[in-house]
Amino acid sequence: MSEQMIERSPDPYNAEPEPGALIEQFLTPQALFYVRSHGPVPDLPADHRIEVSGIDVESRSFSVEELKSAFPTRMVTAVLQCAGNRRTDLQQVSKTSGDPWDVGAIGNAEWTGVHLADVLDAVGAPGASDLFVAFTGADEVDVEGKEAPFGVSIGMAKARAPDVLLAWAMNGEPLAPEHGAPLRMVVPGYAGVRSAKWLTRIEVRDAPSDAPIQAHDYKLFPADVTSETVDWSQGLTINAMPLNAAICSPGSGESLPAGGVRIEGYAIAYDRGISRVEVSVNGGRDWRQATFADDPEARWGWRRWSLDATLAKGRQHLVVRAFDEAGQGQPERPDTMWNFAGYLCTAWHHVHVLVE
Amino acid sequence: MSEQMIERSPDPYNAEPEPGALIEQFLTPQALFYVRSHGPVPDLPADHRIEVSGIDVESRSFSVEELKSAFPTRMVTAVLQCAGNRRTDLQQVSKTSGDPWDVGAIGNAEWTGVHLADVLDAVGAPGASDLFVAFTGADEVDVEGKEAPFGVSIGMAKARAPDVLLAWAMNGEPLAPEHGAPLRMVVPGYAGVRSAKWLTRIEVRDAPSDAPIQAHDYKLFPADVTSETVDWSQGLTINAMPLNAAICSPGSGESLPAGGVRIEGYAIAYDRGISRVEVSVNGGRDWRQATFADDPEARWGWRRWSLDATLAKGRQHLVVRAFDEAGQGQPERPDTMWNFAGYLCTAWHHVHVLVE
Repeated sequence: MSEQMIERSPDPYNAEPEPGALIEQFLTPQALFYVRSHGPVPDLPADHRIEVSGIDVESRSFSVEELKSAFPTRMVTAVLQCAGNRRTDLQQVSKTSGDPWDVGAIGNAEWTGVHLADVLDAVGAPGASDLFVAFTGADEVDVEGKEAPFGVSIGMAKARAPDVLLAWAMNGEPLAPEHGAPLRMVVPGYAGVRSAKWLTRIEVRDAPSDAPIQAHDYKLFPADVTSETVDWSQGLTINAMPLNAAICSPGSGESLPAGGVRIEGYAIAYDRGISRVEVSVNGGRDWRQATFADDPEARWGWRRWSLDATLAKGRQHLVVRAFDEAGQGQPERPDTMWNFAGYLCTAWHHVHVLVE
Repeated sequence: MSEQMIERSPDPYNAEPEPGALIEQFLTPQALFYVRSHGPVPDLPADHRIEVSGIDVESRSFSVEELKSAFPTRMVTAVLQCAGNRRTDLQQVSKTSGDPWDVGAIGNAEWTGVHLADVLDAVGAPGASDLFVAFTGADEVDVEGKEAPFGVSIGMAKARAPDVLLAWAMNGEPLAPEHGAPLRMVVPGYAGVRSAKWLTRIEVRDAPSDAPIQAHDYKLFPADVTSETVDWSQGLTINAMPLNAAICSPGSGESLPAGGVRIEGYAIAYDRGISRVEVSVNGGRDWRQATFADDPEARWGWRRWSLDATLAKGRQHLVVRAFDEAGQGQPERPDTMWNFAGYLCTAWHHVHVLVE
């Protein structure tokens, strides 16, 4: 692991990069890409095969080499982001379950693989939009004290959408073990949990996966639902990730010399463009327009932004907020979106610094 | 006009329904559908023809009868909504231009017509996503003191998307004069301004329409831009309409008897589903889940909701907020989205009532 990774949990291993290191490049290096594990990292054999089966499917299995030769190679630049990214901001409102992610449980990579749609076509899978495609990983997961293989699912329409990949490479390099080697799903725009790592099985189903990760986790509930009262059959299954923006540099609590500072960060809005990013250096009283560092051609990529400002001596309060191409803005306060599992914090992001 | 219409401007005629009348039915009757005119209502002859022309297009014209016989008839249930709906909430922050719309500059109708995509195919129009399709109306419009025909445009990808119609009927009735008879565009999910009424011309272009309505109006700017400083070549062209929710009944300022009250309204989120609607009867301190009145099958329709509550005597403060299927919430305060033209107010909606 890079020294710039901050461990959030040793077992399973969960870590995110220092925000300043994260924002230095458009494509996040594997060594700086957040790791969200739900169990020990599996060590899969060289002849590992992925099974494809399910409703009206001709069951088959593929090695990674067979996938490479059977289907066109596709490349997609896409963010993956944990549904719990920025959970610490919700934990300042009130305690939540889950690891205390800061703003780094997100990364942007160029993924190489084959389209799930091509694989589904090859096994004659039906396309009805009321069907689901489930993914099983080789990792064993403990949910509410029960061990079960990692399992999730997505709807058939998304499964057949362009850009959903079975991927073997990130940024032109083979996947590292902690990122899902030899093969993982990449479901652009959806919460990272739907992009199963260490893929072992794809199944066409008439209902969502009943694996614990899909059925008893990663759902959004109103603020009055608690871990004691939760009915997991209810709630919103977290798929598409909402509009968000974060300041990555300077970091929270950082001491800076007086004078000019470049404020930098990222913004993201599922399948919508970002129309503008506004930064305040006085706690939200006045706002200035940030400049985009990345062009908008990567539909599923993030947009990094920056603003050059001059900060006076003393404690300074930086804030960022973004608007998407529908003119949609972010809610201001984390208490308006608090939920017991600490998902989807999209409130304005605040950073306090000391200028000396 | 219905007695339940509230006039916002006599010339051009602009009016919205009483909110309580608006929310009584899933499909808004024509007589209760908001009217946004930019000039006098044209009176088109029976043999009115719509011209289709532009880049790489075989120029043709069609009467409405010819459109009906040449192409399959399509029906789409869709909301149309003025970009200035809820402008009064922004005007309470600070003055804006534009008519003082309350929550009624929106309606939901079943539209009958033909797909624009079918018409584009019939004239051999190209499909390149960097092209635009412009619509001209028979209405003469005054923008910044210049008279010009009403003209707008949308991108080719949206123009060719399913559900974009040349429509001659609302809720099974011929279009009323003020709603665009004999033929209007219906661009589901987009601000109503893109759905040109009294359609006279469709043109494939390599740039957006340069008509004043497209080029010098209906754009979103940051709060520090004013009508004096605005550069209309900048700003976000308002197309997709963001997440919003409003209380329609009881109405603001209404006096109610003590006891049970049904609180009702609508929610809308462009192409996303609404995942939940929360209502507060104590000014936002506590929130309860509203019940949906309409199923989510109408992709472009609104979702009406209701909550039964018991209100104590005195002044009571009701608030609504919605979340979409990405878990996206609404910003809390209108000052965080204020803009000089008063567009896209999506702040939590407040209603004050007196319980006697």
